Amino acid sequence: MKENTARSAALPVAPTRGRLRPLGLDEVRITGGFWARRRHTNETVTLGHCRDWMERVGWTGNFRAAAEGRIQQDRRGREFADSELYKLLEAMAWQSGTGTTPDAETAALTEVLAAAQEPDGYLNTAFGRPGQRPRHSDLAWGHELYCAGHLIQAGVAQARTRGEGELTRIARRAADHVCATFGPGGIEGVCGHPQIETALVELARLTGERRYLDQAALFVDRRGHGTLPDGEFGRAYHQDDLPVREATVLRGHAVRALYLAAGAVDVAVETRDDALLAAVVRQWEATVARRTYLTGGMGAHHQDESFGDDFVLPPDRAYSETCAGVASVMLSWRLLLATGEPRYADLAERTLFNVVATSPAEDGRSFFYANTLHRPHRDAAPATETVSPRAESGLRAPWFAVSCCPTNVARTLAQLPAHLATADDQGVQLHQYADAEIDTTLTGGHRVALRVRTDYPSGGTVTVTVDRSPDHPWTLTLRVPAWTAHATTWLADPDGRRRTVAPGTAGTTRVFRPGDEIRLELPVRARWIRADPRIDAVRGTVAVQRGPLVYCAESVDLPEGHEVDAVRVDPSAEPEDGPDGPDGAGGTVVVAGEVTAHDARHGESWPYRPLDAPARPPAADRAGIVLVPYHSWANRGPSTMRVWLPTVEPDHLAPPT
Amino acid sequence: MKENTARSAALPVAPTRGRLRPLGLDEVRITGGFWARRRHTNETVTLGHCRDWMERVGWTGNFRAAAEGRIQQDRRGREFADSELYKLLEAMAWQSGTGTTPDAETAALTEVLAAAQEPDGYLNTAFGRPGQRPRHSDLAWGHELYCAGHLIQAGVAQARTRGEGELTRIARRAADHVCATFGPGGIEGVCGHPQIETALVELARLTGERRYLDQAALFVDRRGHGTLPDGEFGRAYHQDDLPVREATVLRGHAVRALYLAAGAVDVAVETRDDALLAAVVRQWEATVARRTYLTGGMGAHHQDESFGDDFVLPPDRAYSETCAGVASVMLSWRLLLATGEPRYADLAERTLFNVVATSPAEDGRSFFYANTLHRPHRDAAPATETVSPRAESGLRAPWFAVSCCPTNVARTLAQLPAHLATADDQGVQLHQYADAEIDTTLTGGHRVALRVRTDYPSGGTVTVTVDRSPDHPWTLTLRVPAWTAHATTWLADPDGRRRTVAPGTAGTTRVFRPGDEIRLELPVRARWIRADPRIDAVRGTVAVQRGPLVYCAESVDLPEGHEVDAVRVDPSAEPEDGPDGPDGAGGTVVVAGEVTAHDARHGESWPYRPLDAPARPPAADRAGIVLVPYHSWANRGPSTMRVWLPTVEPDHLAPPT
Repeated sequence: MKENTARSAALPVAPTRGRLRPLGLDEVRITGGFWARRRHTNETVTLGHCRDWMERVGWTGNFRAAAEGRIQQDRRGREFADSELYKLLEAMAWQSGTGTTPDAETAALTEVLAAAQEPDGYLNTAFGRPGQRPRHSDLAWGHELYCAGHLIQAGVAQARTRGEGELTRIARRAADHVCATFGPGGIEGVCGHPQIETALVELARLTGERRYLDQAALFVDRRGHGTLPDGEFGRAYHQDDLPVREATVLRGHAVRALYLAAGAVDVAVETRDDALLAAVVRQWEATVARRTYLTGGMGAHHQDESFGDDFVLPPDRAYSETCAGVASVMLSWRLLLATGEPRYADLAERTLFNVVATSPAEDGRSFFYANTLHRPHRDAAPATETVSPRAESGLRAPWFAVSCCPTNVARTLAQLPAHLATADDQGVQLHQYADAEIDTTLTGGHRVALRVRTDYPSGGTVTVTVDRSPDHPWTLTLRVPAWTAHATTWLADPDGRRRTVAPGTAGTTRVFRPGDEIRLELPVRARWIRADPRIDAVRGTVAVQRGPLVYCAESVDLPEGHEVDAVRVDPSAEPEDGPDGPDGAGGTVVVAGEVTAHDARHGESWPYRPLDAPARPPAADRAGIVLVPYHSWANRGPSTMRVWLPTVEPDHLAPPT
Repeated sequence: MKENTARSAALPVAPTRGRLRPLGLDEVRITGGFWARRRHTNETVTLGHCRDWMERVGWTGNFRAAAEGRIQQDRRGREFADSELYKLLEAMAWQSGTGTTPDAETAALTEVLAAAQEPDGYLNTAFGRPGQRPRHSDLAWGHELYCAGHLIQAGVAQARTRGEGELTRIARRAADHVCATFGPGGIEGVCGHPQIETALVELARLTGERRYLDQAALFVDRRGHGTLPDGEFGRAYHQDDLPVREATVLRGHAVRALYLAAGAVDVAVETRDDALLAAVVRQWEATVARRTYLTGGMGAHHQDESFGDDFVLPPDRAYSETCAGVASVMLSWRLLLATGEPRYADLAERTLFNVVATSPAEDGRSFFYANTLHRPHRDAAPATETVSPRAESGLRAPWFAVSCCPTNVARTLAQLPAHLATADDQGVQLHQYADAEIDTTLTGGHRVALRVRTDYPSGGTVTVTVDRSPDHPWTLTLRVPAWTAHATTWLADPDGRRRTVAPGTAGTTRVFRPGDEIRLELPVRARWIRADPRIDAVRGTVAVQRGPLVYCAESVDLPEGHEVDAVRVDPSAEPEDGPDGPDGAGGTVVVAGEVTAHDARHGESWPYRPLDAPARPPAADRAGIVLVPYHSWANRGPSTMRVWLPTVEPDHLAPPT
């Protein structure tokens, strides 16, 4: 692993070592297309939406109440409500870009926080004041370190975009309090919800102060020794069942597991702990192979928002929490920087397009918390003016009693440009494809400027134009997504020579001249996908993927009065591109199949029969079934939806009639 | 519906009207076989086990603490802990049989309750005393009426078996307090957990006092109007989303839904409310057709212990709570008495053999709370000396933090003889088959005595010998289980004449003489079962049922080192009877199939592939797969288990290689 010499201050994640060097938000801009539209909505709608809701439900007011000595009566929201304001501040920082002073909104919210921080640096509106539970009296569920972590992340984001100011100072005081309280000789505990680990490492990176890193390493090593109470969900819920170094797969609460893994990578990178890094890589591999949905979604249980057993991936009860998608992208990004392996960018791409992009509605004002892969019934639209008490429904909700997801989506979209490209001593690597402009300085001080133009993910042509280049050879590396396997991908060099490239990475090394073009032609076409037969819940079904996008059937596209569970598809015919979809990003796909007449199978009788009993297959009409990108579903009113579609092939269990 | 003139006092459920008249525990005895063994274990082990655990965890002590004014410091257990002592007292009453005085144990526990009851009749150790929350301040989660209901049931059981005594008086005072507090002009609310409804109706039946029935009817009618708060699980969780009369299917928390439905039947029968009865029948039909596991188990969600959507019945995350099985048997029994339709006895049989009998271990000292149909990994044995914080594991636990199931199993096994037979003006009906002696008096005062001998469920021959009979014709009716469909069932009359009979009921009307025998020959053989294709979670799999018993593969019966998920079966060959199983009740079954070599499919890679990508099927060894009765699983140490088995038929999604 190489040392990084950061060229940019505006880095969401800034490891001091790694195979690849991240580029900052001042080096990469997204200029158009799928993600530009979503970032625009994020900036112009979602950030304000989150700010307004937090005022309305009193979570911002909690800080004022704490400062004014009336928190005992006036506290609103759950233990972790403070963290939402911090995540919003972080999102605002990354979204608004670099400058020299905080924007007015940030400055105003920072004042609110400053007034609530206690003299010793502790800042949490749910604990420690008269009439409240004592500080750190409930490590399992209190979320105090979790909240502190998000505060620190906000302070880092502020420092990295607008320079150190009051928010960063508040964050540092909070971090100092954490180190004083939980450092050697202090409380030998961990927080029930990991998050402080990544935050402290990032603060160490920002400040150069080793003690923050040491504290993060201490938290990583302390976990897994059963210091948290065993409860209904078991010790794995808090990842307190096994030390990080000994675990072989991610387990328990998915967001907790992924945040912890991300923190462990950060610690491993900074402390040169290859064994710890290898442990997380092993867990990532097993988790991706056995505990991840086709969408990249993670978390199969509603009960405890946790990973299921290996291959237990029910589509109809998929939890696939938005925040787990965010956390998975965070983990993959750190592993990509550390190792340079494209498989991490593959998973990040899948998760961004099919989980992170699915959560917000087109208008940026409502969100999925859980991202199911099958909705068998239509839900009434959630009220737009009230807080949803539930994590899941068939339509997005504007705000939740536990509202972790909206601000998590916001801070992810805000920092997305940083995920597009990296650099190393050889040159520049493109990981995610979007219309973009990249302007960075390679080793030796040589400036490189690139323009990326693409219709991805609707189309597969990615053109990279060199606008500025040193006059010696360097390498432009493009990721060839894993989803291109068993199809042909072409790469054309500036001379127009095409070569086929395999999944992984494809590099072009030469003396580039301004105006030179590299063209990647990705085989974006709809393909049938099948699952490992060990995934019981989708046996006998197929799905459709087109480029990185997973597709789904949605009832609004079916003949009047039909629901998606009446659909069977015929995978012997290739899926074909259909008319543009409702979202304009990805288009529709049409597959051959049939729709069972609505009531044909609907008897009210015992649903299990001897195999040797006669059966009459239901009447069905052949039809072309329109599929839409999964991320776009539930934008057209109440609907039913499914990703995995049963096949029309005669049920091999049906008896010969 | 006819009026019932009860012949017996010892009736667990004593409707004043109904198509069938129940027989009391003094009229039906189970003398041998499957259920006699379990009732013996219940009497000699489980009742004491529950009593000892309740002492140990302090739930009995709560009553002493309440009486002694130290409950605020000393209360143990959840809000509903009181109910466990009541359920134990009810179980002890039914199990110990009739007499003239309470047994010593009951008397001692009754003294404890008496000391804790407040002067106005209120009795609950979790609310209302200094330092506790006020009475009825948390109807949604407080379980006060739920606990009162179980107290009333215990008082009724005591009165019906040993005569009215102190326990019955305590119960009546509690019921009077409920009526005074929640009756007209009182609190217009319902309890978050139904249960009080059945209890109040039964008390009305015992005492003849209409006001208890009126209060139950009020509770049934009040529910469904959104008086309980909407929360994370939605109003359906408490069945407060729709009035009972308007609902079309059971939904929400399964035990709550089933208790409420049972209470609604009780109210409907006693108030001659045919519309209400029809509403519950409709809900039962839809629930059985769309929301019930092959085992009879109900409840598909762990999160909220609730019914899933229609046809959402995942085997690996089946909740199928033991108490929901108990509640389902309660509901079916009431519907059977009201309507006389054998379909209710069919479901009760299935649920008794595959849920209620599955919960307790062979030794009667540990229990399943959830009854999954698939366990993909081996669990370590739960500690035998500590309370399990979890509802589910792959092995039974001796006691739970929420320990509703052990006492619920105990009270069900205790009253099981009453489920075997009924009478009406025409004669006697046998509903469940076990070695038994029945001695009752028909209309007109004519005494009938019968002996039943059978090896059911291992074998299918049921012989009923008439020991005493009036010298005029009457009808002996035997249920022909629904599981005999598409196979031949014979009924032989006392003259040895055989006729085939169809699923439903088969009556023999004649002048019976002592010594006359009726013989039912049920086609008990193992058969492949398939599920309605709308049940997504078991597509492409089959199960085995033999008589009423559902079977499963358990890893302890597989070649060394294999787990059940490696099994594929070949349904083109009929299942065959194997050697006797570990339980001696039901025997084993051997099916043709194959076992995939352990690691053959175990790559650590993305588990979704294009359908057109080449694939190599895993190596597999042909093998005879031994299946055991589902109720017997997990009695031989940690194991993996599954009921629904994928078929060996080449995966129709596998590409031509």
